[in-house]
Amino acid sequence: MSVQDMRDFETLARNELSAAAYGYYAGGSFDEQTLADNEAAFGRRTLRTRGSADVAEVDTSTTMLGMRVAASIGFAPVALQGLAHESGEVVPARVAARANVVYCLSTLSSRSIESVGAEGGGTNWFQLYVFRDRRLTEELVARAVLSGYRAIVLTVDLPVVGKREREILDPLLLQSRLGNIGDLEGSDFRSGVGKTIDPSLSWDDLAWVRSLSTLPLVLKGILHPLDAAMAVEHGVDGLVVSNHGGRQLDRVLASIDALAPIVDVVDGRAEVYLDGGIRAGTDVVTALALGARAVFIGRPYVFALAAGGEPSVTLCFDILLRQLREAMALSGARTIEELAADMVLDH
Amino acid sequence: MSVQDMRDFETLARNELSAAAYGYYAGGSFDEQTLADNEAAFGRRTLRTRGSADVAEVDTSTTMLGMRVAASIGFAPVALQGLAHESGEVVPARVAARANVVYCLSTLSSRSIESVGAEGGGTNWFQLYVFRDRRLTEELVARAVLSGYRAIVLTVDLPVVGKREREILDPLLLQSRLGNIGDLEGSDFRSGVGKTIDPSLSWDDLAWVRSLSTLPLVLKGILHPLDAAMAVEHGVDGLVVSNHGGRQLDRVLASIDALAPIVDVVDGRAEVYLDGGIRAGTDVVTALALGARAVFIGRPYVFALAAGGEPSVTLCFDILLRQLREAMALSGARTIEELAADMVLDH
Amino acid sequence: MSVQDMRDFETLARNELSAAAYGYYAGGSFDEQTLADNEAAFGRRTLRTRGSADVAEVDTSTTMLGMRVAASIGFAPVALQGLAHESGEVVPARVAARANVVYCLSTLSSRSIESVGAEGGGTNWFQLYVFRDRRLTEELVARAVLSGYRAIVLTVDLPVVGKREREILDPLLLQSRLGNIGDLEGSDFRSGVGKTIDPSLSWDDLAWVRSLSTLPLVLKGILHPLDAAMAVEHGVDGLVVSNHGGRQLDRVLASIDALAPIVDVVDGRAEVYLDGGIRAGTDVVTALALGARAVFIGRPYVFALAAGGEPSVTLCFDILLRQLREAMALSGARTIEELAADMVLDH
Amino acid sequence: MSVQDMRDFETLARNELSAAAYGYYAGGSFDEQTLADNEAAFGRRTLRTRGSADVAEVDTSTTMLGMRVAASIGFAPVALQGLAHESGEVVPARVAARANVVYCLSTLSSRSIESVGAEGGGTNWFQLYVFRDRRLTEELVARAVLSGYRAIVLTVDLPVVGKREREILDPLLLQSRLGNIGDLEGSDFRSGVGKTIDPSLSWDDLAWVRSLSTLPLVLKGILHPLDAAMAVEHGVDGLVVSNHGGRQLDRVLASIDALAPIVDVVDGRAEVYLDGGIRAGTDVVTALALGARAVFIGRPYVFALAAGGEPSVTLCFDILLRQLREAMALSGARTIEELAADMVLDH
Repeated sequence: MSVQDMRDFETLARNELSAAAYGYYAGGSFDEQTLADNEAAFGRRTLRTRGSADVAEVDTSTTMLGMRVAASIGFAPVALQGLAHESGEVVPARVAARANVVYCLSTLSSRSIESVGAEGGGTNWFQLYVFRDRRLTEELVARAVLSGYRAIVLTVDLPVVGKREREILDPLLLQSRLGNIGDLEGSDFRSGVGKTIDPSLSWDDLAWVRSLSTLPLVLKGILHPLDAAMAVEHGVDGLVVSNHGGRQLDRVLASIDALAPIVDVVDGRAEVYLDGGIRAGTDVVTALALGARAVFIGRPYVFALAAGGEPSVTLCFDILLRQLREAMALSGARTIEELAADMVLDH
Repeated sequence: MSVQDMRDFETLARNELSAAAYGYYAGGSFDEQTLADNEAAFGRRTLRTRGSADVAEVDTSTTMLGMRVAASIGFAPVALQGLAHESGEVVPARVAARANVVYCLSTLSSRSIESVGAEGGGTNWFQLYVFRDRRLTEELVARAVLSGYRAIVLTVDLPVVGKREREILDPLLLQSRLGNIGDLEGSDFRSGVGKTIDPSLSWDDLAWVRSLSTLPLVLKGILHPLDAAMAVEHGVDGLVVSNHGGRQLDRVLASIDALAPIVDVVDGRAEVYLDGGIRAGTDVVTALALGARAVFIGRPYVFALAAGGEPSVTLCFDILLRQLREAMALSGARTIEELAADMVLDH
Repeated sequence: MSVQDMRDFETLARNELSAAAYGYYAGGSFDEQTLADNEAAFGRRTLRTRGSADVAEVDTSTTMLGMRVAASIGFAPVALQGLAHESGEVVPARVAARANVVYCLSTLSSRSIESVGAEGGGTNWFQLYVFRDRRLTEELVARAVLSGYRAIVLTVDLPVVGKREREILDPLLLQSRLGNIGDLEGSDFRSGVGKTIDPSLSWDDLAWVRSLSTLPLVLKGILHPLDAAMAVEHGVDGLVVSNHGGRQLDRVLASIDALAPIVDVVDGRAEVYLDGGIRAGTDVVTALALGARAVFIGRPYVFALAAGGEPSVTLCFDILLRQLREAMALSGARTIEELAADMVLDH
Repeated sequence: MSVQDMRDFETLARNELSAAAYGYYAGGSFDEQTLADNEAAFGRRTLRTRGSADVAEVDTSTTMLGMRVAASIGFAPVALQGLAHESGEVVPARVAARANVVYCLSTLSSRSIESVGAEGGGTNWFQLYVFRDRRLTEELVARAVLSGYRAIVLTVDLPVVGKREREILDPLLLQSRLGNIGDLEGSDFRSGVGKTIDPSLSWDDLAWVRSLSTLPLVLKGILHPLDAAMAVEHGVDGLVVSNHGGRQLDRVLASIDALAPIVDVVDGRAEVYLDGGIRAGTDVVTALALGARAVFIGRPYVFALAAGGEPSVTLCFDILLRQLREAMALSGARTIEELAADMVLDH
């Protein structure tokens, strides 16, 4: 099978992964309506491209929280990458560093903050859950700082864990693979995470999280403009518009459907990112045109990791970057700033 | 087969029920377009959830007509539950009482007002048809009062009985199972009910129905805002937005499509409930966010009753309650009052 | 096969008719997109019914051009009914007369104006094409007057005949069956009709058509509000909103999609009727609620004619009338005047 | 197989062409969403036709850039027609000349400017790419002028070549067939074209292109109203609303979806044409009613060329012209000026 685009890695990965591991990555909650809609919502939009611009040179670079990155494409935090490859999160972090784009490590990673930190050339961010054990939370942030991570990405959409019918992982298998936080309580991953993560997290706790380091703070899991406004008022540096890859509450709106009103309300006071459903260069162009500063990819790079390790992750990213460059050229955009909201029509 | 959600009970019930009984419960009128749309209309909406609230404790309780209930979920009146289980309406009434939620008994029940009333811990309501024989109507209300029922739910959308092609019940079988009103005239259930229920019921009769007891009065079967306004002007205490489960006129709008304009026009002067198409916690959240005070479930609990009696009805309700709690937590809502209309987008 | 609704007659007819005759009746032009949309457009609407009216008595009667008829349902002109039954147009005219509703005879009928006129109890209308031979046109009107027809229905949407791929009629067979106008020129029905009917018909000719009799004049084939306005200014008594059953230009809008703007512009100055896609009582209710004074059925009664002659045509009409009565009762409408536009929602 | 409409030629051509040649003509970029949408977008519109006009004579003629043509239908530039037929572009140019409509020759044609020019009776236009080698560009325009071409159509939507998965042509085969510009550099057609065409083309270059001849200048590949406005300000004589047949960036909007806003902004200051998805007379009527002065057909005539050479191309054009005439008559339009925007409804 020759790889034509990012989606092809899923087919390849399915042959490599156990049913449990494939189900863990591929699945979403309940009827998987949101999971499907994340992709479908891009397809409901069309692009109204510009022409007649000199696109001999196309520049995909931008800054994210002050960091210059080669492209508006980052690697989203995905838990337990050791299920996909023995070198787990280390490999994609290395690919991201080489490409000079952001890699965001999950708290629930298979490999430790330190071993992944050793790979990153200043391109690592750290995704944080607030645990019932606040001291554990503090330690995680301190370790991320020491390991050179450049931002804290606080996930706010997992007070409880959504019901995912395809998630049938052996709890023993999982606990042995958690690189940062030791064994989870409980009989399975879902209830273990549920018992560990603090469901009482609220706006009042943000100041405390911020006080744990001098790193910029990003909130991940924002869908409602009122939450975006609250976040900005609490001084966050960035927001990730995300529905957790359709893995939490089914029937929430698609990420791209949530983006524009949030960009409006934020009004430049924080950076707005998006994850969920990015499968091609035109998806990236759509999100950037509607005001995202960058997008994050998740499942595709994990499937590439499972399919062929480092070369596949590199290929996966390169395909998307090349598609982004082509889509920008064919949109008449030399820079990502030239991608304007009037290029996207919503039918 | 392991039960994952409420819909699974239908598959189990189909194996237990005769074709006639299954068809009676499962079917709708004509092309069953409204029957299907009751569920599909929920799927046309997405949820735009809030985050960052302390949802360590989620409270699903509310009051209905002044009664404190554990959840905004009641049991809708469904006729002839003896076709599903020998202890007919008695079992679900017992489950509802134990859960402290409303059970609404159908006039056309298999078991009598008194035997079901003996089960309810003050959580029973009584659904009433106005019969051509007004004395029979008076007696039914009097019996409901004596048996401790807490509200009269007058159904107004059955002046004639809709044509249901899957309804092939043996009339003799049916008549022997009616617990409250004795034998129906006519050769089959449809024509029997048609000959018994008074099609001339109108607004002028409401005062008479109200005079039959001091119980609160709820009208069931309202779809048009003008009827809701009339009902409020006639002093009703509650309304059920309902299309009779898609069993009366096919092609009427889905219940959830009818809700918001009725909530607007009622403007807090009466309680507004909804039945039709509730199959998951996100459906409940949607209806409550759009202004319903509570929802009623119908077919799912009757299929559970047929599938496994009391334990299955308990499980069916527990699944929905747990889903409601999870959906509230993932919506950032600690109480049902925090479910706001801006959380629901209609595409 | 037991007949449940009007659509069932098509299945029965298909077994009785030659492929050529079935194709002639069933087919539409080109891709048959308009043919399908005539029905589908009703399904895109839902009914928001009223309740709590005294519907013990439902009255389906109305007046059409001053004639009191038992129902707002007429028989549309369909050509060549001799292909369906040896007593061609005579049978449905008799059924209509007995039911006291309008039967509209096609110019291109198999049986003559006189033989059909002998059946009608004052319920016949005559559909007219203007021929290149104006004298032939004058004679037709004169014969209709003498035979007791009560209105002239001038078809204006057939300046040329649309391309219908399922129309494969043997021209000789057809010519022998035309009851009113003798042999057509040309090698097939389509080109024969095309050579006979005058494509130069325009507004200027209306006064002449009107001068041919004292009968009320109805224009059939109106889709655009500007044409409706012109028609009213030219003093017509009625309009039929129609796309010729999807048999002329494919991709024109569905009849029911055209209705409301035309009702608006006519503003009571003429009666507005509709044909196209009527298959159930809810379709009739929809059209009447949106302002049609009556609807006409076409294919269903011709299929009934082919399936079983007079008893089937009677049954076909009775099914629809019973459905109309039930749909009115379940809409809370005692008379057709009570069917209001706010009962129809367009999604 | 009897040919009923233009689409039938694709089936016939598929039997005649190699897989590579068929894939080259039939394919679009990436998921071919835009390719499919070009046709589907016409199907999302319905026609609200007028009646009661004297359509005994229907006139399909118009002027294009001052040339009187027999119909508002031209032949779009399609590269490499030698893959379809040994007499390549010569045959359709001859058919166009005979029909007195525009034939637009591609720069990347199999046959030379001169040999095709010898066929045209003053009906040829020349499609131009601006090459990195500007002298080559100048020579092409000079040759077109000398060979009697009547307009220059500058394509602006190909700064890079879109990824088309069905395009698997042997590069050697292709190079031997280019009639105008000699061998392409590179290992395949896509990269060869990419290395030859100048991606730096911008508004600043328009004056230079214009200076190369006194012929009228048309820009092809406009989708955004702002580009249309720019083009008019730069004094172009015409615009082709086009997405390059869905062969460049996938997910751009359908041509017909782009038309109306561009017609608005141009406001008569230049002629607006459209290509993409024209498959029937009603498509032509739709585009003309929405303000296009003419449409161009592409794949259908090339498939006809492959299927049966000159007689098939003639038949293909005649079918469309006949359909246009019929659609105009059934729309009540005697001339193309009478096709008004209010005849098209967008659902």
